[in-house]
Amino acid sequence: MTTTKLATAADGIWHNCHLLPDGDPANAIHDGALVVEDGRMVWVGAHAALPATYQETHLPRHDGQGAWITPGLVDCHTHLVYGGQRADEFAMRLAGASYEDIARAGGGIVSTVRATREASEQALFEQAAVRLQPLLAEGVTAIEIKSGYGLSLDAERRQLRVARRLGEAYGVAVHTTFLGAHALPPEYAGRADDYIALVCDTMLPALAEEGLVDAVDAFCESIGFSTAQTTRVFEAAARYGLPVKLHAEQLSNLGGAALAAHYRALSADHLEHLDEAGVAAMAAAGTVAVLLPGAYYFLRDTHLPPIALLREHGVPIAIATDHNPGTSPTTSLLLMLNMAATLFRMTVPEVLTGVTVHAARALGATDRHGLLAAGRDANFVLWRVASPAELVYWFGRNSAAVVVRQGHVYPGAEA
Amino acid sequence: MTTTKLATAADGIWHNCHLLPDGDPANAIHDGALVVEDGRMVWVGAHAALPATYQETHLPRHDGQGAWITPGLVDCHTHLVYGGQRADEFAMRLAGASYEDIARAGGGIVSTVRATREASEQALFEQAAVRLQPLLAEGVTAIEIKSGYGLSLDAERRQLRVARRLGEAYGVAVHTTFLGAHALPPEYAGRADDYIALVCDTMLPALAEEGLVDAVDAFCESIGFSTAQTTRVFEAAARYGLPVKLHAEQLSNLGGAALAAHYRALSADHLEHLDEAGVAAMAAAGTVAVLLPGAYYFLRDTHLPPIALLREHGVPIAIATDHNPGTSPTTSLLLMLNMAATLFRMTVPEVLTGVTVHAARALGATDRHGLLAAGRDANFVLWRVASPAELVYWFGRNSAAVVVRQGHVYPGAEA
Ligand SMILES: [Zn+2]
Ligand SMILES: [Zn+2]
Repeated sequence: MTTTKLATAADGIWHNCHLLPDGDPANAIHDGALVVEDGRMVWVGAHAALPATYQETHLPRHDGQGAWITPGLVDCHTHLVYGGQRADEFAMRLAGASYEDIARAGGGIVSTVRATREASEQALFEQAAVRLQPLLAEGVTAIEIKSGYGLSLDAERRQLRVARRLGEAYGVAVHTTFLGAHALPPEYAGRADDYIALVCDTMLPALAEEGLVDAVDAFCESIGFSTAQTTRVFEAAARYGLPVKLHAEQLSNLGGAALAAHYRALSADHLEHLDEAGVAAMAAAGTVAVLLPGAYYFLRDTHLPPIALLREHGVPIAIATDHNPGTSPTTSLLLMLNMAATLFRMTVPEVLTGVTVHAARALGATDRHGLLAAGRDANFVLWRVASPAELVYWFGRNSAAVVVRQGHVYPGAEA
Repeated sequence: MTTTKLATAADGIWHNCHLLPDGDPANAIHDGALVVEDGRMVWVGAHAALPATYQETHLPRHDGQGAWITPGLVDCHTHLVYGGQRADEFAMRLAGASYEDIARAGGGIVSTVRATREASEQALFEQAAVRLQPLLAEGVTAIEIKSGYGLSLDAERRQLRVARRLGEAYGVAVHTTFLGAHALPPEYAGRADDYIALVCDTMLPALAEEGLVDAVDAFCESIGFSTAQTTRVFEAAARYGLPVKLHAEQLSNLGGAALAAHYRALSADHLEHLDEAGVAAMAAAGTVAVLLPGAYYFLRDTHLPPIALLREHGVPIAIATDHNPGTSPTTSLLLMLNMAATLFRMTVPEVLTGVTVHAARALGATDRHGLLAAGRDANFVLWRVASPAELVYWFGRNSAAVVVRQGHVYPGAEA
């Protein structure tokens, strides 16, 4: 499934369609039109208002056949690049093995670190490509990819280089995040502060210098790094002018979200145990709440993120796959829409803005992604649905009829 | 996506593959071979044991490229044929509407009955075909399809005719189930016994006569039909020599499963509230327990079916999508594998046999489906996975590389 060879130019007038310019059904444009020139959207609006100048051109006309068009989807939190997978560990756990049994059998995150370190750059690329393709077929046109399974300068570099190469090979916008502070590598057992020094003083400077880092993240948790260690990572990011994000309050409330907000983080992610002080700090800082229903589902979590408080304080909420081999082995962002609704009781407008405008904001990329608007690269999806709610209602179904990514047209699943 | 035109014959020797003849990894054949002649499997076993007679033929050779091969998947409980969908009702509920609000807005099952009655046979066919295709792309080669949204002789007939037509058009084995006793149609409000008389004395005789009914089902529930009414349906089925199934113990324990077992039902389905007496009765009768994790998930149910008791009594367990617009709008049987494991804690062998051998048994079709074995139609799937556990571990992902259905080769999702 190399989609590239099927790509044709999206230039022309897309008509006989309905538009969701920012994902929110309240702002829908029925009977819309969308004009693409040189791979960019140059006009978006009601068909009746289409300027005569476009009507009279010889631009090709693309019949949307009544489809709904959304912005290209944005998956703003993934760990897509790693070696191996953990299916056998999953099978062991279902068969009754304890976490100790699995650790003794060499499982857990250390097994992914080992497989990632052992994999060549080409092997990492090929494995990640297989996982990227289904996301692209669902209309993902921008994706964040974190490092964090290398945990050494060389291996983290390999992950980030692969992330960049995926973007080039598949014509998709990739935002890289350096997550050196994801877990303590075995060789630093008992020396977490030394490892954080390596992350801040060696790894980040080198990788930032090489242009491999768009943002910096850490795993702030009792089983991860402390707020003091996270602060050191954020300070290092600031020295390189890089925005930050944080894995915060997933398993307990350490105050990570408030710390992230203090550093004007783009986002704080997971947040199952977030309290009102953290919510207020995020609201004040404009930090996006990235919720990850796939991990909540896969871990059989029962502690819901504080959706009502986030709404009350007006914190923008994004939804992402959190694709990773240990806690969210999913390659469907569309499934996350249904899980956010079913498990978190988010509404259809919340869910749809959560993978468009708000997800773009979690990447610091609202100027390029998450909106249908003139002046932007043509990134949008035609959906074979009767109403926007269908995008959230079905589960395990891809209704994308056509995906337009960086000005190129690809067939969707229902083409 | 009309796959038919891409189909080529599966005849030849499939090699460089591993086999799961009955879905159970304990019975795996590493380095297997599978020979197809005239659209039928004629030899299945270890490649090293392949008889010389096949080695020397001029049969084409198909390189499995290291894939795992399972029997074609069997989705043994679906309501795939109906008019409309209920996405807007789902959106209303998320936005806070009560069931009364939705009923006032014309929603609920009556809206599906209305849309089904109003739809032409061709419209029903086209809508169901869109939902069938993703199941086929996942390797489903046999599917049960119930009526039950028509609730009049004409409309039930239309549903069952469409089910048969889908089988012919897509080259997939369709097992039809007459579910006239699904819900009380509005024109029979307060006259449930009269409606059951219509089901037993008019609808079933006519539809059975027309060859449209492979099995008979009912919805035995406080909000459905009583055990006395269900008994009348089962007696009518017996008069036509038709096997029965039952929607039982989903919301409460009425003893439906034991009743079904008494009538030697092929299966009792849902079963969240099944008790040990019901389990024992099913075990004695050889009735399959069909579990439906999609409905459990979508309804945010918390009352697990009695998996431990089913295991203890040796009741065969099958897994199905229960595809329907109200409580399980999913078109992914593979997602149900993950949900059965994640939500029900079923093991990998249980889940894989649950969509192969045990699902075939729930259709009374163990002689044709659910096994790789000589003498059967070639229905199997090549999966691009390193181990069978991967089929259960990933969610929202289709790893099918090649689907062989009724002797024809179709590309899977990762081809
Ligand atoms: Zn993460
Ligand atoms: Zn059902």
